[in-house]
Order: sequence, then structure tokens, then C-alpha cells
Amino acid sequence: MDSEAGVAMDHGRAIHRKAKGYRWEGVEERPYKEDDRALFKSITRQVLFSDPDMQGELRYFEVAPDGFSTLERHQHMHAVLVLRGRGHCLIGTEVRPIETHDLITVPPMTWHQFRATRGEPLGFLCMVNAARDKPQLPSADDLAKLQANPAVAAFLRNESVS
Amino acid sequence: MDSEAGVAMDHGRAIHRKAKGYRWEGVEERPYKEDDRALFKSITRQVLFSDPDMQGELRYFEVAPDGFSTLERHQHMHAVLVLRGRGHCLIGTEVRPIETHDLITVPPMTWHQFRATRGEPLGFLCMVNAARDKPQLPSADDLAKLQANPAVAAFLRNESVS
Repeated sequence: MDSEAGVAMDHGRAIHRKAKGYRWEGVEERPYKEDDRALFKSITRQVLFSDPDMQGELRYFEVAPDGFSTLERHQHMHAVLVLRGRGHCLIGTEVRPIETHDLITVPPMTWHQFRATRGEPLGFLCMVNAARDKPQLPSADDLAKLQANPAVAAFLRNESVS
Repeated sequence: MDSEAGVAMDHGRAIHRKAKGYRWEGVEERPYKEDDRALFKSITRQVLFSDPDMQGELRYFEVAPDGFSTLERHQHMHAVLVLRGRGHCLIGTEVRPIETHDLITVPPMTWHQFRATRGEPLGFLCMVNAARDKPQLPSADDLAKLQANPAVAAFLRNESVS
């Protein structure tokens, strides 16, 4: 058993990382994405579990009040558990209010976005396959189709307060 | 979008399952294991995410006060996040006090056990590979080796109150 910056280690693997207010020992808080198109707002990312021997990864994303994740779709799925706060999400054409510990499944090739609509941070765990495709962004046509649904249009304008 | 017992569905997939006090809509609370050797005590299991398109699974285990999971090891890894309460775990020869939101990694072929030692429930998420080997139980010789470590012996006697 080694020790590295207070983190209990076993042959190079951190076996115990303490939580401190939605930050974790030995886990770097990273920018959400390296992308200058500003399709997201006020969101951070921490990779909690990623290991060559695991086929899944677990990440923690936190959206500050009024922030949002990228509107996107991809072949890989998201398995989400809300860890902190409340907000709304869009899954396909469904806008849902979400609360702490709720589970959200994003099926393959389904448009989705998470928004911190309640004046409080929205933090969520997201499990994905370690091997996965890159997200696709909506075309103007895709956006028009989504916005044809009034509830979706209101969500995308940040007006989802149902 | 269909609906099944209050759960929002999309082509047979539940996209939103609400949390209700560490139970989830549409998720069955199951016995921990089908095993009559009583190597565990007072623990339940809910499978939160399991899907043919995902290579990882996410489960929630909850140990009632004074209960414990099976002492075991296996080739596959566990990636654990404590969701509720406090307790102790054994990882290899390391006994650790664990608290809400702490992260615990169980490396391959490492003896491990979780115990609700604090008079409160210990609930934790556990990510695993969907394809994984069966757990191994300790032989008398394995147990003797573990018990040669005083801290591990105390843990296994349920006396870990550091």
C-alpha cells in the first residue's frame, strides 16, 4: 500500500478517494470540452473511474445555475444518476424535470441536453462505454425539427419551468 | 413515448426513473445473492442500469446497520461510490472508514468486503463490466492469512471503529 497526496494506492491504483463537497481527492476538475463554439455553458467534468480493466467509465458533471450541457446525440448510451440538485433534461422529444438520485437513460442516437433550471447546481454521474463514438451536433434542420415541438423549443430557450 | 407504471419509456427503454428514498421506479429490490451459506448479512441489491448496448452495469447495494457484503475476490473490478451513510471497507489488507460520496476501487483478485459499522445504512453504487467472472470465496488458508493482520481480523469480527 503506497500513498500519493493523501490517496490510498495499491500498485498504482487509487483504492480510496475521499469526497469533499462534490470534489474528489486525486481527481482533476477539467473543462467540460475543448470546443470554442460555446454550445454549452458553465459545466465542469471529473472522471471518477477510468481503468484499462473496466469497459465502462464513470464521470461526474456539474452544471452551475442557468448552465447547460451540449445538445448532441451519438451511438453510445448514457446512464445518468443525478447526484446533486435539480434541473431539467431533454431526451429525444421529452422534457423532464429531474431531481436528486433520479435515473436517466439516453438511448443511442437520441438528442439530449441537461440544464440547471432551478437556480441551483445540477450535478450528475454519467456511465458510458470506454470505447465510444464522437457526439454529433444538430444541423439547422435538426434544430428546426426539435423546435417544432413547443415544449422542446421552450426548453432550448431555457424556459423549462414545469 | 410510452409509459409503464409511471416510468417514462422510449421504445422499451425507461428514460426516466424517479428516486424515492433510495428506491427507484421500475427497479426491483432483489435479494443480494441466491446463496444459503449466509456469508453476508442484511444487504439488498437494485440493478439501476443494465442494457445490451452498455458494456458496464450500475447497481445499488444497501447494507443495513451491522450488515456486510460477502468477503470475496474476482478478476473483474468494482468501481464504488458511496451514495448513503458511512461504514468501513476492506480492500486487500487495507481497512478504510468510508463516507458518503467517497470513491473505492477494488482491483482484480483483491479480497474485499463492505460493512455498515456506524449504526446507519451503508448504500453504495457499484459499476462493473457486464461480462465478468464469478466471485471466489476465501479458503480456510486465505482467511487465516487475512486474519494474521490485526486490523483485518478486527474488521472481520465487526470491530472496525477507527
